[in-house]
Amino acid sequence: MRIETDPLAVQREALARRARGQRVGFVPTMGFLHDGHASLFDQARPDCDWLVASIYVNPLQFGPTEDLAQYPRDPDGDAARCAAHGVDLLFMPPLLYDADHSTQVRVDGLTDGLCGRDRPTHFQGVTTVVARLFGLVQPHIAVFGEKDYQQLAVIRRMVRDLAMPIDVRGGPLVRDHDGLALSSRNAYLSPDLRRRALSLHRALFAMQAACASGETDVSALLALGHGLIDSDGFDYLEIRDATDLRPLTAVTGPARAFTAARYGRTRLIDNVSLAAPTAEAG
Amino acid sequence: MRIETDPLAVQREALARRARGQRVGFVPTMGFLHDGHASLFDQARPDCDWLVASIYVNPLQFGPTEDLAQYPRDPDGDAARCAAHGVDLLFMPPLLYDADHSTQVRVDGLTDGLCGRDRPTHFQGVTTVVARLFGLVQPHIAVFGEKDYQQLAVIRRMVRDLAMPIDVRGGPLVRDHDGLALSSRNAYLSPDLRRRALSLHRALFAMQAACASGETDVSALLALGHGLIDSDGFDYLEIRDATDLRPLTAVTGPARAFTAARYGRTRLIDNVSLAAPTAEAG
Repeated sequence: MRIETDPLAVQREALARRARGQRVGFVPTMGFLHDGHASLFDQARPDCDWLVASIYVNPLQFGPTEDLAQYPRDPDGDAARCAAHGVDLLFMPPLLYDADHSTQVRVDGLTDGLCGRDRPTHFQGVTTVVARLFGLVQPHIAVFGEKDYQQLAVIRRMVRDLAMPIDVRGGPLVRDHDGLALSSRNAYLSPDLRRRALSLHRALFAMQAACASGETDVSALLALGHGLIDSDGFDYLEIRDATDLRPLTAVTGPARAFTAARYGRTRLIDNVSLAAPTAEAG
Repeated sequence: MRIETDPLAVQREALARRARGQRVGFVPTMGFLHDGHASLFDQARPDCDWLVASIYVNPLQFGPTEDLAQYPRDPDGDAARCAAHGVDLLFMPPLLYDADHSTQVRVDGLTDGLCGRDRPTHFQGVTTVVARLFGLVQPHIAVFGEKDYQQLAVIRRMVRDLAMPIDVRGGPLVRDHDGLALSSRNAYLSPDLRRRALSLHRALFAMQAACASGETDVSALLALGHGLIDSDGFDYLEIRDATDLRPLTAVTGPARAFTAARYGRTRLIDNVSLAAPTAEAG
């Protein structure tokens, strides 16, 4: 595995490989990698000739009061994990933008609710950095975790709207042994906060089970979930269409339950799929 | 020459040609083509294997009170002109955006003054459509006229910031026999309005000559120009740096004079390069 810090060197190699007929795979990350990221490398690996991972803690997607300066970092551990999961090139730019960078990419609508309400500039920062990274890495395939499900939907929309010829794939959310959704931010949690944070996925799983048993009314499902979540500050619990993220009043097709809550100063998110029983099964 | 209306068919062919090692050239237009557009086709032609021109009157770049519905159209004449100037594929999509298109690309700073002041949403519409067209056409080379000099600077910035691997080239402004900058909107002008509109380029040329003779003070050059322009409504006359478009107080390096003015209901723009005499020559 090679480590590269120069953005234009990555682009030169990507274009040369594409010209030789190679397929380029890409997994962009903010580092402090865990088994969730590794599962994305594993998912991309069989379908590409050259697998690029990037690590860049993107200032544009952090709000002024968020944890940019404290975001956890482990470059040596990250490099070892990338190498062990078949990454060919690890792109770690110290700087990614020109000093007079002035272009922003924004997706409207999909970014209004859920995490977009509490983090108003977040998704514009995500789409801008991903557009630039796509330009540099020139991927045929890019894989993003379903842990950040709204982000995945927003990136799919950007790719469709700007006609980027990229196959955007979602990787299933990976949970720790105790069920907590893997996140680099879990490193911030004390044992006690972590114990209380388990209420997040337990609430989502209870809603998933209730829905599968025939409770398709969104108000009833949300009431069930609200009764189970223990947090220090609650951002949202919502049920939305799985594709366009529109709010639902009843689960009649593919849907998703989303939650975000704070534990101490750490904000955690989680989500699960919801499906009503089919007519045959019900 | 082939005419194609389906955006994704254009992208499929572009990707297939790139995979075979062909170089793709692209000139996006809004149609009603004139010799200025033809000069862009001629400029791109020798440096590409496959030359694509597009005609799309992009609603996103027109303000609510502008001439979208009246914008002149001549599809048959346009096709003949493209064929005569070596265009291989003329892309004429009836619709370019999905019904739920929700992505916008915005360049800040460069779009604040000049045409950006009078047309506040114009450049966001331009960068959004050009980003989508670049995604579809996958060009190695794209040529834009220096008639829309600010647009060219904005597109260069977008391409740099989003790391699009595209060589963006400017084509020199082409003038009619009487000196008026060629524009599809010249079709709106009565003979009398046209005669008065000639004051635009005459003022710019007078400023250019004064600068070449040693008058480098911007206020003096602007006073000269203002005294020569006859219009029904004056939008701006400015001198700016030729690359980053920052306002100047003196011409010390490559600079450009820009003007926009209205004749009847028609808004015209023009620009010329300014250069002070060199130390050797002065």
